[in-house]
Amino acid sequence: MFTVQQIAETLGAEAAGDLSLEIQRAAEPGDATGSDLALAMSPKYADALSGGQARVAILWPDADWQALGLSAAIFAPRPRMAMAGVTGLLDKGQGVAPGIHPSAVIDPSAELAGDVSVGPLAVIGARVRIGAGSVIGPQCTIGMDAVLGEGAYLRDHVSIGARVTIGDRFIAQPGARIGADGFSFVTPEVSAAENARKTMGDAGDARAQSWLRIHSLGAVEIGDDVEIGANSTIDNGTIRNTRIGSGTKLDNLVHVGHNTRTGTDCLLCGHTGVSGSVEIGNNVVLGGMCGVVDNIFIGDGVVAGGGSKILSNVPAGRVIMGYPAIKMDSHTEIYKTQRRLPRLARDVEMLKKAVSKPDPSD
Amino acid sequence: MFTVQQIAETLGAEAAGDLSLEIQRAAEPGDATGSDLALAMSPKYADALSGGQARVAILWPDADWQALGLSAAIFAPRPRMAMAGVTGLLDKGQGVAPGIHPSAVIDPSAELAGDVSVGPLAVIGARVRIGAGSVIGPQCTIGMDAVLGEGAYLRDHVSIGARVTIGDRFIAQPGARIGADGFSFVTPEVSAAENARKTMGDAGDARAQSWLRIHSLGAVEIGDDVEIGANSTIDNGTIRNTRIGSGTKLDNLVHVGHNTRTGTDCLLCGHTGVSGSVEIGNNVVLGGMCGVVDNIFIGDGVVAGGGSKILSNVPAGRVIMGYPAIKMDSHTEIYKTQRRLPRLARDVEMLKKAVSKPDPSD
Amino acid sequence: MFTVQQIAETLGAEAAGDLSLEIQRAAEPGDATGSDLALAMSPKYADALSGGQARVAILWPDADWQALGLSAAIFAPRPRMAMAGVTGLLDKGQGVAPGIHPSAVIDPSAELAGDVSVGPLAVIGARVRIGAGSVIGPQCTIGMDAVLGEGAYLRDHVSIGARVTIGDRFIAQPGARIGADGFSFVTPEVSAAENARKTMGDAGDARAQSWLRIHSLGAVEIGDDVEIGANSTIDNGTIRNTRIGSGTKLDNLVHVGHNTRTGTDCLLCGHTGVSGSVEIGNNVVLGGMCGVVDNIFIGDGVVAGGGSKILSNVPAGRVIMGYPAIKMDSHTEIYKTQRRLPRLARDVEMLKKAVSKPDPSD
Repeated sequence: MFTVQQIAETLGAEAAGDLSLEIQRAAEPGDATGSDLALAMSPKYADALSGGQARVAILWPDADWQALGLSAAIFAPRPRMAMAGVTGLLDKGQGVAPGIHPSAVIDPSAELAGDVSVGPLAVIGARVRIGAGSVIGPQCTIGMDAVLGEGAYLRDHVSIGARVTIGDRFIAQPGARIGADGFSFVTPEVSAAENARKTMGDAGDARAQSWLRIHSLGAVEIGDDVEIGANSTIDNGTIRNTRIGSGTKLDNLVHVGHNTRTGTDCLLCGHTGVSGSVEIGNNVVLGGMCGVVDNIFIGDGVVAGGGSKILSNVPAGRVIMGYPAIKMDSHTEIYKTQRRLPRLARDVEMLKKAVSKPDPSD
Repeated sequence: MFTVQQIAETLGAEAAGDLSLEIQRAAEPGDATGSDLALAMSPKYADALSGGQARVAILWPDADWQALGLSAAIFAPRPRMAMAGVTGLLDKGQGVAPGIHPSAVIDPSAELAGDVSVGPLAVIGARVRIGAGSVIGPQCTIGMDAVLGEGAYLRDHVSIGARVTIGDRFIAQPGARIGADGFSFVTPEVSAAENARKTMGDAGDARAQSWLRIHSLGAVEIGDDVEIGANSTIDNGTIRNTRIGSGTKLDNLVHVGHNTRTGTDCLLCGHTGVSGSVEIGNNVVLGGMCGVVDNIFIGDGVVAGGGSKILSNVPAGRVIMGYPAIKMDSHTEIYKTQRRLPRLARDVEMLKKAVSKPDPSD
Repeated sequence: MFTVQQIAETLGAEAAGDLSLEIQRAAEPGDATGSDLALAMSPKYADALSGGQARVAILWPDADWQALGLSAAIFAPRPRMAMAGVTGLLDKGQGVAPGIHPSAVIDPSAELAGDVSVGPLAVIGARVRIGAGSVIGPQCTIGMDAVLGEGAYLRDHVSIGARVTIGDRFIAQPGARIGADGFSFVTPEVSAAENARKTMGDAGDARAQSWLRIHSLGAVEIGDDVEIGANSTIDNGTIRNTRIGSGTKLDNLVHVGHNTRTGTDCLLCGHTGVSGSVEIGNNVVLGGMCGVVDNIFIGDGVVAGGGSKILSNVPAGRVIMGYPAIKMDSHTEIYKTQRRLPRLARDVEMLKKAVSKPDPSD
């Protein structure tokens, strides 16, 4: 329960009307009841707002809140920024009780800060260290010698492998796997796949062979303010650590391969997969279902549209799309021509006839 | 153990021969032993059936069961419908014992119907309600205030987040995650990715910024007769609930983003990913590895071929394919021309020479 | 702790210098300290090696180890083979303690070989059999009647369904799901999706219908020396078993559908999805994010580039790429022409004008 004034102060936003009104939860403009905060940051919500029962709303700047029938209003110049503030304030969480649940299995050598909460049936290994204010959800496993900073928040069923190190304010959604072994195998002699990659198409005469496993001796190293989505996976490095830079966020079902390093403040959207030994710069955004081949680099500030398959190095600042990914505007131009392809083919047929016809004396 | 007569009655199918014969399990025609029910719903299985030891089989209509050497037969006009009936009858399940396993951790305020089974090491939160006849598998976590209808069947390691509501006859495969937080972040000022989306290719001069988190205050709301595949993820809505309509089925490793709503009786096949705030109609089929961009709609009855990346609204009834997805027949026509592209390019070169040649006086 | 001599013997490699030196861990050439084994199998690492503090290194054949300032060296003709040996030797593992953790829930009818280790909070069902030397990680669930061979190594949160059978030396990464139910549904009458597949684009006039479930009576059958990646899923067969051949390795977030059979020594890279009833030969390599439509075959030794969507049968030995996948060299040729498409379209426009112009008397 917060007053309008408390919410406005949290957002650093201006407010008007009865600032002592109390808010229970946020709601869409048409669903809001008298104790809700209606979220109506654009004039397009004005009608829905009038149709609902809201007495308080967050509005676009300069909105005429009284004409909208409200008793109080907060004004938000950048709507999604206001959403960040309001939702952070009103989040009811998942209900992990304070303290250590008696069913959790915690190695006596683990060092948990005094106020750490651990949910039912979590497993915490030898010499693990967990910083102040952290919440470890039910069913999580944290492997030996792993280190988590302050304010970690793990939902349920999260795996943190042995020797993984993580900074402050880490968030992991259910089923995130940090520190699985890398996918790294070798055949005794050169394999068909190696030949095909080298020649771009010829498997050569490699004989059938079995795969030998290269173990992962490295771990995963994660900066501050990182969030990992549900059922996403980050593999251990082979010798050095795989690394996720501070401020980087991974959506659900994202995979980051062994040895790969991302910079700071990147977004990797749902189902994106990054192979091993990739270097990703800062502020890179990979849309949903992007794929990145191994052993390349992606420069700072690159933005890749959804579904892009990135098969070669990408210079900083480039906006790309496609399979294989190229500059987005080139991709769009090619794509438009492609849709005219059947007509183009007919034109060429016609031209061939026209060009061969003019000289009937041949 | 069922008699031929019991199976035929369950299927509502005609049968012939010794209807009192008892069946232990179903088998492929060539593998079937004397106590098995051979599944041979098409004449192409006749030889394999004769080669096996089956005494009872499900056959195509009007099959001459005696000539096939059988003692009894059931006749199936639509084979896969018969498969639904037979496999439902003979499924041996996963063996969760009746009752509550003593190792499960159940909040005293949770309300479970009298005949609910809970497997070992499951965690059930405060005020959770679970309907009659439900089976909660080992290692599942059900968050506070979640509601499951009657006849729920959860395999192991399933996550149900706080405040999720689910109808009757829900099925969740291992590792399904319902109610992870949505992937929603905002930068203080306009970001490069926002610019690139608006201009379709130009990142503009946005400076590097960090991401602020928009929390998910909504939950997930699921209708009746829904099934969610192994390791699939459905995220909470931001304000309103994410919604899965009755009768909709998700395959493994499928992702449904925050705020998205699917209609009834949809199929989302393996690895398909739907972004946030998408409206999907009824009876929509998305093949494997489809991707859907955020904030679009997909009309009733749309069918998308495997691998489609859907980047704009799709009207009802359309059959689509490709990246970006377009009408399947246009895609096929473009694709066929594409394969002739290298020859087309050579033709154009030739034409250019032919057209420039005729006038040697230039 | 191993001596240089022990490591060289394990690798079957030649060594020189002080073979009694002891090694704590492996390191990259620039990071190595005096007790590390620097991995510098190519001359390109020579500078980094000189800049580090390594006294022992694995080097390329004929390297002048003394000139590099080393006290001892091991020589590796095929670097990644040496990596397999060295990393296997130095892997510190995840620290599951020997014996059965008291918090594990094991059915009294399960038969575990005497030296099997079981981590905290694992669940092992009725009549399960587990071979000698196996390690079952924390939070794993093994369903009734499942069989694991000798030397199994399961990380945490792994699901093994009822009736699954697995050979020797099996490795499963966190969250792997073996034996989920197949994704198999049928409508009472022919559905729009069936029509669209048959006609390649026409949904016909099928009415909206609900889906009936076909249960999975089969299980999963896995050979020897198989590894399954984090959060990957392999579904049960409908009647017969889904099968993974010996020596085959699956990366993270890979899906294998019901009834599908892979041969021996295949690699399925990250995010690859194989539909149901696919027959995959031996020594097949599917790059990252490959998709395979149902009911086709892929011959021995096929190599598919990352992102390929395989929509029809592929003969043995072929190297393929694209959506839909075709021979890689054809794909590359088409792709190159595609990039010239906008220019080609302009050329054709010019030609049309040129061809219509020559005859001004029309």
